[in-house]
Formats: sequence, C-alpha cells, structure tokens
Amino acid sequence: MTQQATTRWKVMKWNGADCTEQEDDIVTEYPLTIRLDGEEFATMVCTPTDLEELVIGFLASEGIIRVIEDIASISIDTDRGFANVELRIKQSLQKDFYSKRFIGSCCGKGRQFYFQNDVKTAKTVMSRDKVTVEQCLSLMEQLHSQSPDFLKTGGVHNAALCIPDEMIVSRTDIGRHNALDKLYGFCILHRIPVRGKLIAFSGRISSEVLLKTAKIGIGVLLSKSAPTDLALNLAEELGITAVGFIRGERMNVYTHPERIYRMPGNL
Amino acid sequence: MTQQATTRWKVMKWNGADCTEQEDDIVTEYPLTIRLDGEEFATMVCTPTDLEELVIGFLASEGIIRVIEDIASISIDTDRGFANVELRIKQSLQKDFYSKRFIGSCCGKGRQFYFQNDVKTAKTVMSRDKVTVEQCLSLMEQLHSQSPDFLKTGGVHNAALCIPDEMIVSRTDIGRHNALDKLYGFCILHRIPVRGKLIAFSGRISSEVLLKTAKIGIGVLLSKSAPTDLALNLAEELGITAVGFIRGERMNVYTHPERIYRMPGNL
Repeated sequence: MTQQATTRWKVMKWNGADCTEQEDDIVTEYPLTIRLDGEEFATMVCTPTDLEELVIGFLASEGIIRVIEDIASISIDTDRGFANVELRIKQSLQKDFYSKRFIGSCCGKGRQFYFQNDVKTAKTVMSRDKVTVEQCLSLMEQLHSQSPDFLKTGGVHNAALCIPDEMIVSRTDIGRHNALDKLYGFCILHRIPVRGKLIAFSGRISSEVLLKTAKIGIGVLLSKSAPTDLALNLAEELGITAVGFIRGERMNVYTHPERIYRMPGNL
Repeated sequence: MTQQATTRWKVMKWNGADCTEQEDDIVTEYPLTIRLDGEEFATMVCTPTDLEELVIGFLASEGIIRVIEDIASISIDTDRGFANVELRIKQSLQKDFYSKRFIGSCCGKGRQFYFQNDVKTAKTVMSRDKVTVEQCLSLMEQLHSQSPDFLKTGGVHNAALCIPDEMIVSRTDIGRHNALDKLYGFCILHRIPVRGKLIAFSGRISSEVLLKTAKIGIGVLLSKSAPTDLALNLAEELGITAVGFIRGERMNVYTHPERIYRMPGNL
C-alpha cells in the first residue's frame, strides 16, 4: 500500500454569514515504529514520505549510527507502520542512556545540553563559508514556493539542503524534527558532503533543531520563525550562524554574523 | 531564582541593504525533569511559567493521576530544573507501557490510537453545547490579542479555556503540548468543571492535541491552523467538534458541525 502525504476531507467552510460544504486536502499523520535488531526502539508520528531517509536520519541523530555502512539492512512495512533495522554491529541499547537528563557540573555554565547523547553527537562547526543577505532571502522564498504540500494543506514543515545559490533538496513533514531527520538521512544515504552548505527551515529554531543542524555538520541555519534562547546559546558555542524571521526583505542574524555579508554594488 | 519567559539578545537586523544592531526579546527554553517518587520519569523542554500546572497536566495526560488528591506532594526546584512529585499511592511505573505502540486488532479500522495509555485515558465527549460562528471567531481573536509573549517574540503557542462568550484563562508555552498540559493542570488544580467549555488553540490540530482535548473532556476545539487526518478521525469518533483555519471572518468546521450555528438575525 502506498502512503499518501495528504488525504481528502469534507469541510463546512464558514465565511462570515456564508457556509459552503467542500472537500479539502488534509495532511496525513502516520505512526512509524522503529524496531532495532528486533526490539521496539521508538515510535514517531510523521508524514509518510521518504521513510527510509527518516529512519536513517533519526538513528544518526540519536547517535546509533554514523555512516550508512553501520546499517546491515532496513525494510519498511508501510501497511503496519514498522521500520525494521538490523545493525552491522549489534549493540546493547542502554535505552535509558539516550533519554537520560544531562546535568552539567557547573550550574549551566558549561555546554547547555540536556540529553546525554547530544553531548556525544553534536559537533562544533568550523566552516568559514560566507553567504550574502540576498542569497538568504532568496533561499527562504524558494523553500516556500516549492512546497506543494504546504501550499495545499498549510500543515507541514519544510527543511532544505542548499548551496548559497539554490536549494538542492527539500524534505517535508508534519513534524519539524522529522523534516530535518529526512534531510540528514538523505545526506547519509547518498554520502552528500555538507561542507559549504546551508539549511533553510520553515519552523522555529529550538535547541533540538539547532542540535540537529550541528549533528548534520551545517554552519548556517535559515528560518522564517523565531529562535529560543537555549538554541542561540548552543549556536554561539557550536559555531553556527542562526538567522531567523526571514520574511520578504527582512531577516535577523542572531549568532556568528561573520558569515553573512552584503554583496557590494548590488543594491 | 525566578525564571523568565523571555530574555534579551543582541540581533543584527537586516532590511534590504540596511543593517542595524539592536536588542530583541527571545523566548526562553527551559528543561524540566519530572521525578516521580524519586525516579526520573520524563524530561520536557518548556517555557518556565506555570510549572506546577504543567507537571500536574502532564501526569494526568499520561494517565498517572486523575484528580489532585492523587498527588501527595509536589515541589519545583527551578534552579536545577527538577519537579519532585510524590504520589498518594505508590505505583510501579511500568515505563514501557506508557510509550508502547498500540497495535489495533483490525488493520486500523478500530480506534486509531497508537499509544497504550491513550486507550486508557481518552474519553468520548457527549456534550450537546452549542456555539455560534461569531463566538468562535471572537475567541480566536481574543487568544492572540491577549498573549504578550507571542506579541513580543512570535515564538510561543497559546491554549485558552473558554466559555462561548469569553476566554477564562490562557496558558503559553514554546511547546504546543505543554500549553495544553498547563491548561489541563489548571483545571485539575482548581477543580474547574469543563462542561460547556471550549479550547482555543494557536497550533495545528494533531492527533496528540486532539487526544489531550478529549482527556480534558472538552467538546469543541478551535484552532487558527490546519488539522491532520488522524486528528480528524479521532475527533469524529470521540465526539469532538474540530474547527481549524480560524482567520478573520473565515473558519473550517471539520467534524461534528452540529455544535456550530449562526446566530439568527445577527448578520
């Protein structure tokens, strides 16, 4: 059975005093359970597209795999909503470890991670690549205009891998973390080098979003939405340029502004 | 130490060719770990306001408590981000149960729950209360105009308990589920009867949001955003009127439209 990203639903549409009945496209919500070496590892709710990439990206985010060779086999049972993954090297999962609160030793003055596995997987980004203001604005515009599911339903998030001049690939999901995991999975599956690349993202810059960007190894994160303080503290420390509220001609650069410049003579 | 919902951050603001540096309000992201009878139960990331309500609502959502008397004591250590809860009757937590995937027996034709504890806690709503289109539009307008944190930062969600004519109480959080849990906690803590009340919500109507509405016992859910198909199937079955895309004079009624009517002679 092929899964669809949207489905039809009969809606009573009110507009002031008028009411008409019509069919609308509604975004699909699909539960997917990952079984790791036969054992139930996690259940996520997602948009049922690019499921293999989602699983690969999620496992990499969680620090379970690093490269595609770490996976011996992966199969998706779309009817029942299971992803069965066999790892190359069996590991005892220590499930507790992955969800365990990380308590810094010095009253929050050290790294502001709050889960143990983030300490292990998030890397500082050293890239010296630069991008112009015009490129940032244009990439955010491309992100929205090229999302058919968003245009149809208004209910999904988009994450795109970009070079400064254009979007390379865009992934969509009702869960904003899932959209990023699909992108991460795409990079791992196709061995895409991330050097010099950016991420354009439709959702808020939370600490989880920022950490995923760091794990993928990207130095510039563009968003149309607001950031949180924890995300900005992490961005500052992990060397990531966080740009938010990209709307029309405006944008806010919150951290590492040295990567953003204005093209001389282009205004 | 008092926790703040927002903090200040120095921002480079670009507007076309112009760049100015100024301070903005940024929404705070705060990790809170719930310890239940001394054992780590869950870590959530939240806006550090109404934390006691958040913990109470979360525990009720998870099916750990039903009424405030189920809690023997609760204390929040705001400096270190811990909520210590002692239950009246100790229970062996069976942690696995709460996150265990629920697999229906008949290929998705039964209840579309996907976690075991939802089967236990979500109730069908039988209310016959009615609300006018004008009241729905007005409540959504009130929800936004009365949220100072949203107006300042653009980065939070709001959930409000309402009677048809006005908002009673509104709760704010960066996590949309947290905003609903704070509202649920408020109802439990103050023993608020929910009969005849509505929820106005700024976020998308996902299955989790719908299930929380059902657990609180509310029959009408108003949102400015899109719904998902799984949420609508649950709403249909649990007797909840789901209204989405409430913007200006427009709104979409997706399920149980019998509770929505137009005031005669008022147009």
